[in-house]
Amino acid sequence: MRRTHRIVTILSMAPGERVTVYGWVRTKRDSKNVCFLELSDGSSFRNLQVIVDKAEEEKSPVIDSITTGASVEVTGTLAASPGKNQSIELQADSLKLIGEAPAESYPLQKKRHSFEFLREIAHLRPRTNTFGAVTRVRNQLSWAVHRFFQEQGFIYVHTPLISTSDCEGAGEMFQVTTLPLEKVPLKEGKIDYSQDFFGKRASLTVSGQLEAEIYASAFSDVYTFGPTFRAENSNTTRHLAEFWMIEPEMAFCDLAGNMELAEAFLKNILSSVLEHCSEDMKFFNQWVEKGIIDSLEKVIDTPFTHMSYTEAVQALKTGKTNFEFPVEWGSDLQSEHERFLTETVCKGPVIVTDYPKEIKAFYMKLNDDGKSVAAMDVLVPRLGEIIGGSERESRLSVLEQRIHDTGLNPEEYWWYLDLRRFGTVPHSGFGLGFERLIQYVTGMQNIRDVIPFPRTVGNAAF
Amino acid sequence: MRRTHRIVTILSMAPGERVTVYGWVRTKRDSKNVCFLELSDGSSFRNLQVIVDKAEEEKSPVIDSITTGASVEVTGTLAASPGKNQSIELQADSLKLIGEAPAESYPLQKKRHSFEFLREIAHLRPRTNTFGAVTRVRNQLSWAVHRFFQEQGFIYVHTPLISTSDCEGAGEMFQVTTLPLEKVPLKEGKIDYSQDFFGKRASLTVSGQLEAEIYASAFSDVYTFGPTFRAENSNTTRHLAEFWMIEPEMAFCDLAGNMELAEAFLKNILSSVLEHCSEDMKFFNQWVEKGIIDSLEKVIDTPFTHMSYTEAVQALKTGKTNFEFPVEWGSDLQSEHERFLTETVCKGPVIVTDYPKEIKAFYMKLNDDGKSVAAMDVLVPRLGEIIGGSERESRLSVLEQRIHDTGLNPEEYWWYLDLRRFGTVPHSGFGLGFERLIQYVTGMQNIRDVIPFPRTVGNAAF
Repeated sequence: MRRTHRIVTILSMAPGERVTVYGWVRTKRDSKNVCFLELSDGSSFRNLQVIVDKAEEEKSPVIDSITTGASVEVTGTLAASPGKNQSIELQADSLKLIGEAPAESYPLQKKRHSFEFLREIAHLRPRTNTFGAVTRVRNQLSWAVHRFFQEQGFIYVHTPLISTSDCEGAGEMFQVTTLPLEKVPLKEGKIDYSQDFFGKRASLTVSGQLEAEIYASAFSDVYTFGPTFRAENSNTTRHLAEFWMIEPEMAFCDLAGNMELAEAFLKNILSSVLEHCSEDMKFFNQWVEKGIIDSLEKVIDTPFTHMSYTEAVQALKTGKTNFEFPVEWGSDLQSEHERFLTETVCKGPVIVTDYPKEIKAFYMKLNDDGKSVAAMDVLVPRLGEIIGGSERESRLSVLEQRIHDTGLNPEEYWWYLDLRRFGTVPHSGFGLGFERLIQYVTGMQNIRDVIPFPRTVGNAAF
Repeated sequence: MRRTHRIVTILSMAPGERVTVYGWVRTKRDSKNVCFLELSDGSSFRNLQVIVDKAEEEKSPVIDSITTGASVEVTGTLAASPGKNQSIELQADSLKLIGEAPAESYPLQKKRHSFEFLREIAHLRPRTNTFGAVTRVRNQLSWAVHRFFQEQGFIYVHTPLISTSDCEGAGEMFQVTTLPLEKVPLKEGKIDYSQDFFGKRASLTVSGQLEAEIYASAFSDVYTFGPTFRAENSNTTRHLAEFWMIEPEMAFCDLAGNMELAEAFLKNILSSVLEHCSEDMKFFNQWVEKGIIDSLEKVIDTPFTHMSYTEAVQALKTGKTNFEFPVEWGSDLQSEHERFLTETVCKGPVIVTDYPKEIKAFYMKLNDDGKSVAAMDVLVPRLGEIIGGSERESRLSVLEQRIHDTGLNPEEYWWYLDLRRFGTVPHSGFGLGFERLIQYVTGMQNIRDVIPFPRTVGNAAF
């Protein structure tokens, strides 16, 4: 047994065809002689309307046991639908109940539920309209990311999740251990990590970039797409402890090449969602964030503005005076500044480059002015920063100096420095938080609602 | 700056074209008037041969500073090659050294290195022939997995990595914590997990299956492809503490449908590697595992045999008597048994079904005989088990009984049981360990050599 037709396919089939459909009942409506079932198998935002002739079905009690949430098998003939919401419907001549969903206990009744409530039943929320749409958009974006890079010959690299390397700055990392916490073994007053699984203190990664640079130094163009972790105590609508990141890294590529790729990438994956998830996007456009389709189309159609950080600070200082956070050359741009730049100053996407070295990571290429680095942040209306990246420092001596100046331990970076010792090349890359992207594309306000099972402070259920 | 041509593309371009190429020097050979460079950019197993006229280049010292591992930029004209190993070569008229690789310190000289040595320099081994080929095959298999499922309308689900749920059997799991191990907070003599990040004891997942079932109960066909973890103290050539798994899950699908999909899936991704990584596969065929291409082609061309566990035990008992582990109905099949079944009894891939319930997981569908479950293991020559799966128990009362009989706590499974309470459907799925698959496809003996940065007992470097 395996179903042969998905509902998304059936919806574009011709009247007269006979099909067997499997799915879950979303709603049931009775008239005197006929029962209407809205059937979903998750393949499309639209449901398949099934018409059951009650006279015929009276022989069996099946129609009465069917409620919202029940699973059924229906065989029948497709017919043109007189209804305004669909062009095709299924006239059932056989209807089987597979699994009941008792109305008195099934939590997903027809009425609307709050997202807060649905988070408590994250195992059932995929069956709702909103989470159905979010899931299909998330799937389409994942697929588009892989396709974009694969079609250009990028190599997908699975960078490690667990690491004993201290390269990432241990500040907000989760520790991974098999030591018994009831009785942590000590040796000379210190934790005896020789008894831990990896023989050293181990943590969950916060980024695959440094390892991606290793692979870019052999395969030129690579990308990662995997989970990353942040043990940040931030209970906001934009933070997750476990989230997915996309990090391309390109050898023989400077900041200009990096900006070009970031723009092409973003436009490509946004187009792909508008094209392949049009029903889902109409739903978000109507019910979640009015005008969102327009706003994405504008990003796709507009050439991104380029602007240096210095120019950006200038524009912010002359443009507006009542920011919550004051702007001075050297200070980090806040969300309010980013949005002002993209929404008001540039009226479209803008890439801000060449930030002060003090507010960016040690691995970014030092510019000739000695003050700024070849960083780039891609800002879009409604959100602010969507992509952050840079050209990497490929000069051994400059990188060593930066590691020293930042107070890091050069010995921990021996392999990272080796990439500059042996066949170093100009290279660049960027990172994109996948859940922030989905929030941006769908308009969903809370990041907990764009990942199947959110992990946040105090919550890792399911 | 961004390179416009990859070497894999250049190798099939026509003589006469002018190109600029970026890459790393694999070897350098000098004759009296000419210098030959073998150049790699990682895009292909084959290198591009570059011819430099020494007379012209004598002006600059660049040719002398170029050694194995150096990065260069070359501009020139493509010409038909007289050599037997390539059809096209590049006649350089400009040659720039980008980054040196001093011969006295660069660890990757021309001689062959042991895989053990290369594991110590996992940041440089991607630049070798073997790891180049492994990486391209790994990338192609990843892409083929996504493409196979996406083309059939499966939804990619990112199941969670960190979990506070006890559903998976806590035996060999890594603990994830932000508690200070120097001073674990206690409350009434027990660890005070209310102070831990998630407010409960949290671990790294060993499988995404149960969560995939949630999504299959809304989207019908779904798959996961992500990292999983096992804190097993197994120092073998087949075990990793961190590895990638592929787990499709299909609603409205019984064991027969599951077997059909597994066979189609395996054949599809194997074909894709033979087609798109032919140079890499020739390398493995010649240097790593003789006859491997033939053996994969046979799997692709042969219809898989089906055989029940009971039949398999019968065949093992009559077929051969000197197994290390004796075979009786009820005992688990060992690797030697699996290989005998596929290599000697069936002379090709075989799917063994309906194992005794005692040796399989609680969630597998109980057969009508009350003794066996609707499990399936796909066995292939050279390896034994490559895929394990089952139809899942979709009947609430039977599943509750199985949870009880297995000694598990039903309260932990409230959401898993809910899937059987509300619109339950027959559903099936299987799992495939990605690194084992790559070992099988490449013939690489040690699993540490098919993942970029292996995590094993005592090692999580880089």
